[in-house]
Amino acid sequence: MSFQAQYARYAALVNNALASLPWGDDLMSRAMTYSLFGGGKRIRPVLALAAAELTGGDPEALALPAGGLELIHTYSLIHDDLPCMDDDDTRRGRPANHIVFGEAAAVLAGDALLTLGLELVARPLPGVPPARSLAAVALVAGAAGWCGMVCGQMLDAAGETGGEAGERLAWLERMQSMKTSALLVASAELGAVLAGAGEAELVSLRAYAAALGAAFQIKDDILDVEGDSSVLGKPAGSDARSAKLTYPSLLGLERAGTVLRQKTEEAVNALAAWGEEAAFLRDLAVSAAGREK
Amino acid sequence: MSFQAQYARYAALVNNALASLPWGDDLMSRAMTYSLFGGGKRIRPVLALAAAELTGGDPEALALPAGGLELIHTYSLIHDDLPCMDDDDTRRGRPANHIVFGEAAAVLAGDALLTLGLELVARPLPGVPPARSLAAVALVAGAAGWCGMVCGQMLDAAGETGGEAGERLAWLERMQSMKTSALLVASAELGAVLAGAGEAELVSLRAYAAALGAAFQIKDDILDVEGDSSVLGKPAGSDARSAKLTYPSLLGLERAGTVLRQKTEEAVNALAAWGEEAAFLRDLAVSAAGREK
Repeated sequence: MSFQAQYARYAALVNNALASLPWGDDLMSRAMTYSLFGGGKRIRPVLALAAAELTGGDPEALALPAGGLELIHTYSLIHDDLPCMDDDDTRRGRPANHIVFGEAAAVLAGDALLTLGLELVARPLPGVPPARSLAAVALVAGAAGWCGMVCGQMLDAAGETGGEAGERLAWLERMQSMKTSALLVASAELGAVLAGAGEAELVSLRAYAAALGAAFQIKDDILDVEGDSSVLGKPAGSDARSAKLTYPSLLGLERAGTVLRQKTEEAVNALAAWGEEAAFLRDLAVSAAGREK
Repeated sequence: MSFQAQYARYAALVNNALASLPWGDDLMSRAMTYSLFGGGKRIRPVLALAAAELTGGDPEALALPAGGLELIHTYSLIHDDLPCMDDDDTRRGRPANHIVFGEAAAVLAGDALLTLGLELVARPLPGVPPARSLAAVALVAGAAGWCGMVCGQMLDAAGETGGEAGERLAWLERMQSMKTSALLVASAELGAVLAGAGEAELVSLRAYAAALGAAFQIKDDILDVEGDSSVLGKPAGSDARSAKLTYPSLLGLERAGTVLRQKTEEAVNALAAWGEEAAFLRDLAVSAAGREK
């Protein structure tokens, strides 16, 4: 199966699982589904299902807890776009959640997506010991919470502290590893833990996903400089306009590109023990580095 | 042991468990702990521990998941006070979270409290089968989320729809049962489920907590009319100023008092099967109806 077909297969499992939830046509459901079904790439659940399949799990059985990761990612975007946070009016080529539904509904829709996301991770699964699901909740909540993604957003909102280039790079890496990589690492872990993977496999997958997360963020920063607004679905150049610290602004485009290649290589190398079995995850890292949006 | 001593014992178990979490002195920890240790009555975790003890569980072993309920309650208050929601500057006699830390930090502190709250509910416990903890996550997340507390807040934020007195009362009951009672019911259930209670016990505790929640909310509304601002820790009369639909505004103070007594009686009656063993929960309902703040 080609990489594209495999990606589409995992994404379809997730999308079907998410569509099967009992959405209504009340304001709450509409505000939640507007962003959840608003064109996300599903990379976190896809990563979870690929990690599960690589370590002997059944992706079809794990689509719902994997989908929980997408709800958590979606909540973080809605809250991130709020006027009191990044104040972004546009997300994925459409008006941001709070532009359509108002700020109060956007805050609450984010709250509800986070809550439901963790509930889905905790769903009992046939053939999966409950202790594994509890472990999955712990690692996803840990990655999403005050020592992970939310902390990264807090650092981002507070802004960098200045200092020498080395200190600024360290701050940027720390902020990004919490804001972006933590949930990607937890996604790979979730799939592997629910599949019953061993510790050595978990160590490799963590290293892979951490490097993938760094590569993903650097590529995002580069696209904001080089990309085409109509392809991106958001205005390019917004980082420069808000004078945000990014890899290109700190290192220049050329060195940022070098770090992107290094991180991609690191991700691929972490998969060495699996050989061709890990072709999908290898191609995922390579395609993330080459994407145009 | 007197009711007060028993309440203090449960609350101390919860407060010790919450104090044992690895708080730092970073902005995130400070924003979270400011509201978490800001004078809450701990009624949800106390209810959980009392329900656990009544159904054969050990309150000392369950203090951490019970504490998770307080984090979830605290997050809901922080988000509720935001300018885009109720826009309250004061909470429990102190400046609201967003007044002290800013709106962005308040949104994120709420997000982090919710995430950590559910993580605590999912903590594996010695002597408790993991499947029970998974069930606890499901019921707490269900009560807190889009079909429970968050939905109640969405209804509240959207405002009532008008109509005849009967329709308005139905709207008020529905909104309050989701906004306030759902998490109280889940609190009683959490304690009982983790203790391994049987279905008949769960049915009684649900009826008790639902009536307690209604009584609690009616008393809150009455105190907003009759109470003393300095005792309440917030300005009395705020419901009237914001023309909010409440039990006293709809029924008048006298009939609201009658409904309060009926709901309290309902709560007490739901405990009948336990007799004197349930004295603490009975006294909790009676004291909630008689409180001055």
